[in-house]
Amino acid sequence: MTSEHNQRLAALRAALKARGLDGFLIPRADEHLGEYVPESAERLAFITGFTGSAGLAIVLADRAAVWSDGRYVLQLDQQTDAALWERLHVMETKPEDWLAEHAAGKRIGYDPWLISAEGLKRYARSEMVPVETNPLDEIWLDRPAGPMAAAVPQLEAYTGESSAEKRARLGASLREAGQDATILSDPASLAWLFNIRGADVEFTPIALGFALLFADGTASLFMAAEKLPVETRAHLGNQVELADRTALPAALAALAGKIVRYDPAAMPVWFKTALQSAGAKIAEGQDPVALPRATKNAVEQAGTRAAHLRDGAAVVRFLAWLAQAAPTGAETEISAATRLLAERAKEDHFKGESFPAISGAGEHGAIIHYRVTPESNRPIKPDEVYLIDSGAQYLDGTTDITRTIWTGPGPAPADIKDHVTRVLAGHIALAQLVFPEGVAGPHIDALARAALWQAGLDYDHGTGHGVGSYLSVHEGPAGISRAAKPVPLAPGMILSNEPGFYLPGAYGIRLENLVLVQHANFPAQKRKFLRFETLTLAPFDRALITPSLLSAEALSWLNQYHARVYAELSPLLDAPTRAWLAAASATI
Amino acid sequence: MTSEHNQRLAALRAALKARGLDGFLIPRADEHLGEYVPESAERLAFITGFTGSAGLAIVLADRAAVWSDGRYVLQLDQQTDAALWERLHVMETKPEDWLAEHAAGKRIGYDPWLISAEGLKRYARSEMVPVETNPLDEIWLDRPAGPMAAAVPQLEAYTGESSAEKRARLGASLREAGQDATILSDPASLAWLFNIRGADVEFTPIALGFALLFADGTASLFMAAEKLPVETRAHLGNQVELADRTALPAALAALAGKIVRYDPAAMPVWFKTALQSAGAKIAEGQDPVALPRATKNAVEQAGTRAAHLRDGAAVVRFLAWLAQAAPTGAETEISAATRLLAERAKEDHFKGESFPAISGAGEHGAIIHYRVTPESNRPIKPDEVYLIDSGAQYLDGTTDITRTIWTGPGPAPADIKDHVTRVLAGHIALAQLVFPEGVAGPHIDALARAALWQAGLDYDHGTGHGVGSYLSVHEGPAGISRAAKPVPLAPGMILSNEPGFYLPGAYGIRLENLVLVQHANFPAQKRKFLRFETLTLAPFDRALITPSLLSAEALSWLNQYHARVYAELSPLLDAPTRAWLAAASATI
Repeated sequence: MTSEHNQRLAALRAALKARGLDGFLIPRADEHLGEYVPESAERLAFITGFTGSAGLAIVLADRAAVWSDGRYVLQLDQQTDAALWERLHVMETKPEDWLAEHAAGKRIGYDPWLISAEGLKRYARSEMVPVETNPLDEIWLDRPAGPMAAAVPQLEAYTGESSAEKRARLGASLREAGQDATILSDPASLAWLFNIRGADVEFTPIALGFALLFADGTASLFMAAEKLPVETRAHLGNQVELADRTALPAALAALAGKIVRYDPAAMPVWFKTALQSAGAKIAEGQDPVALPRATKNAVEQAGTRAAHLRDGAAVVRFLAWLAQAAPTGAETEISAATRLLAERAKEDHFKGESFPAISGAGEHGAIIHYRVTPESNRPIKPDEVYLIDSGAQYLDGTTDITRTIWTGPGPAPADIKDHVTRVLAGHIALAQLVFPEGVAGPHIDALARAALWQAGLDYDHGTGHGVGSYLSVHEGPAGISRAAKPVPLAPGMILSNEPGFYLPGAYGIRLENLVLVQHANFPAQKRKFLRFETLTLAPFDRALITPSLLSAEALSWLNQYHARVYAELSPLLDAPTRAWLAAASATI
Repeated sequence: MTSEHNQRLAALRAALKARGLDGFLIPRADEHLGEYVPESAERLAFITGFTGSAGLAIVLADRAAVWSDGRYVLQLDQQTDAALWERLHVMETKPEDWLAEHAAGKRIGYDPWLISAEGLKRYARSEMVPVETNPLDEIWLDRPAGPMAAAVPQLEAYTGESSAEKRARLGASLREAGQDATILSDPASLAWLFNIRGADVEFTPIALGFALLFADGTASLFMAAEKLPVETRAHLGNQVELADRTALPAALAALAGKIVRYDPAAMPVWFKTALQSAGAKIAEGQDPVALPRATKNAVEQAGTRAAHLRDGAAVVRFLAWLAQAAPTGAETEISAATRLLAERAKEDHFKGESFPAISGAGEHGAIIHYRVTPESNRPIKPDEVYLIDSGAQYLDGTTDITRTIWTGPGPAPADIKDHVTRVLAGHIALAQLVFPEGVAGPHIDALARAALWQAGLDYDHGTGHGVGSYLSVHEGPAGISRAAKPVPLAPGMILSNEPGFYLPGAYGIRLENLVLVQHANFPAQKRKFLRFETLTLAPFDRALITPSLLSAEALSWLNQYHARVYAELSPLLDAPTRAWLAAASATI
């Protein structure tokens, strides 16, 4: 691995020198700046070896550094060569500071397709030079071709609104804002707007492409022709002009004099430059799809409830199996995850996992984004903590659930139960919260942590992320985290509620349900309040809960939740599983 | 009033016409952009009649509008003439939107001393024209002279750090940031940096002026010579160059080629323009005094504790008196506030009130920023809610406390007690919170509201503001509010903890203590945690608390707090007051 990455680094340096560049920026990103990128865009992994979902490298002539965040500290050290790379944490050493320090007066190249305008702005102290073609692609001789999966229609029975209606609605909002058109570079925005789904990347049913939406509700969709079968073309209709990705520069050049929305935080800076060159006027603003996509309509809400019911049945069958299997020590992290996947695959409308399952026994549970491999796989042993965070894509909804299990057969130690119960108290504090309109995720994140904080404990990840409707399991714009943008929570948003606690080298705890923002009705109040409807249906492990540490209100919530889990799932289960669930969800 | 303001408005319009302006912006601000402004700068009140502490007017040739916020809706309507002014709420109609709508293509004047660069930027859609002199000053014939109170040294016994040390420390931080100098336009920054106090405005002991601090720790102080007595000049020493306010333009012109820090959010845009004209390079950044001033050192912390002890004794004497007086109905809002002031005036180091006391009986308590006048004054009646929010300036510290009292002699109704107990639950949730470093006010505001939210209730103000050390009772940069900037809370910061609830036309509730951010020590934890030390010492009215609505932890906090109040204050009180306090602070 060392010599291979050594050669690649040397080749890149030679390529940079040939272009008159002193350095190059390599974000972990594709042209859509999303979380899941196709293999063909895994340039960061190619050059550094690091395969985490967030990272960045900077290569200079005489030094190179690679960054990631708290989730990947260990993985970054394991996968990259210290002789080639400084391995840095983005919160401790900012890449822009490192660059300003080590490359003063140097010409640093970047690929304008792989960074947003705001992302680029951070490097304003350095001399940043856009490249026409990515020098990494020159030296990556066996780079895979881009994905070419077919885009298929997503039926209105699941979306609740036709593409024409969506385009008319968003076109009207563009007109209201005095804008002629908007760039769309997020494939999940295309999926929502055109009611299509694809298979270009793992876990998220998107078809890679770009689009222009115009104020009159018409659109241009830039997607390779071979990805658009006849039925999809018919579905898109004659208000959507189809063109190849290569037609994009000409289409932007035709926007001279138009006012075009561009999201400087989320869209490649290439678009900004192209619009400016074309003589278009840029109206900075968020992707107009982001908020409508996040606020699910009644049909999508019914769909996600149905998906969660089936997913809950599959998860409960898995948990009932695990309760038998775990104390034997015969199962492993991989075999358990495989079993859960098999249970889900039995359900209607199942399309695959929504992200790589995190199946972590004992100390592996403390690695927040642990992904089991054949090398890391280990048995699930008796009397330890086992964490499984997984989710599925169904045609009618996306799921994401984490449960933390005591494998038994012995009782769990009091300190572990104390930690789990504090995490549960935080989970419940959010689950039962009522809050006025205007409140955003960063404002309520602390409620999920306060019980841990009182004991000097915390967790190094956000409390919640948005979730799509048979789309991305990590969907913007709202999130429950101090670092999230303060996007007011709104009815129809689906978010995760997943506080945790991690004792490195020992165990990890995370308790995650998805919740749906709903109106809370207080008669005689002028002010509008909201609440969370919990979507996920599966019991929390009673073996890890110390009821006396929960407030009366929290315990009451837990018992009501468990009663609901039993009432909704038991009709779907066979007798032995139903009996297991009855015991697992009995009143505490 | 109508005809007077009518004439003034006509005169202003004539003055604008003469200058070729189509309109003019009139913020409620002086050249320091602070909260309390001298009479000579009350231009908004002069032209509109509105005397609230936050507001703005825009005068066009054919229409005029005046804005304030939720605190002043009623007062704005009462004090201004609907025939002359549209009265608007800043959250409902943004001034910049109103201006863009009504003055497209018009030339709108503004005084560059009375608005920050960021404030001005909001009006970017309109053609904004700076004026050399304020046209209002032309027509305001009896405008008072600016204040000329003496600036006096604040002894190191209270500040804990000499001005030379402070200037050296901040100078070093300028050097580290690669900056040659900083503008200082906030008189509270001057007061802190030079260890001086003044009497130019009510309630806040500041001396109006400007300063330049250089990276070598020397400074220029721009302040009228008659405000600087010999002892103050001696105290300032020879590293601080003294100059008149009129020398400011020349001093800025001399900064050609220098890198100068300027806070676009807090400093008049005049400075930005002057620096640009001079050929200085602007480094945007917060007033470098703001954070050091907010984080009180050990001497300041000891000072504020001593001030709160004396203030607590005065408040308890007042509350003991009120317990006797209120049920008689013989006292009024004014007589009660006067009594409290008199009790405070008996204490050592007392220098005056820290803001106009809010003394509101019954329905007046629901007016969040109520200021009693001889016209509005009303008796405090038996069996109603009385709210008093007040504070004092002492040489060693600034106080701010709100208590809500049931006047008796009958018992309080259950619904009122329910509301008070929810407010108290929120107050205690913050008071006992432990949180990691990095958490900021906007992240914990919800904890003070959750008990109200569960019942569909809320309050329309922030939960907490920073408080100075014998300085402003409203001090930046940190605050506990969703709208506050997320400035991480840091040891030494003093903040208010003041949730409330208001039932218009009926009563107001607010329970306010000041708290001091401290380290929380958890042995064996790598992570650093913080907690609040409550500074304010006075009992909460037991007649308004329903103990069964509080959690066991909250009730325990209350009893411990009351025990501490008695233990610390009883040695300072005479026997009858001590007896009253013993009953008022007895274990519930």
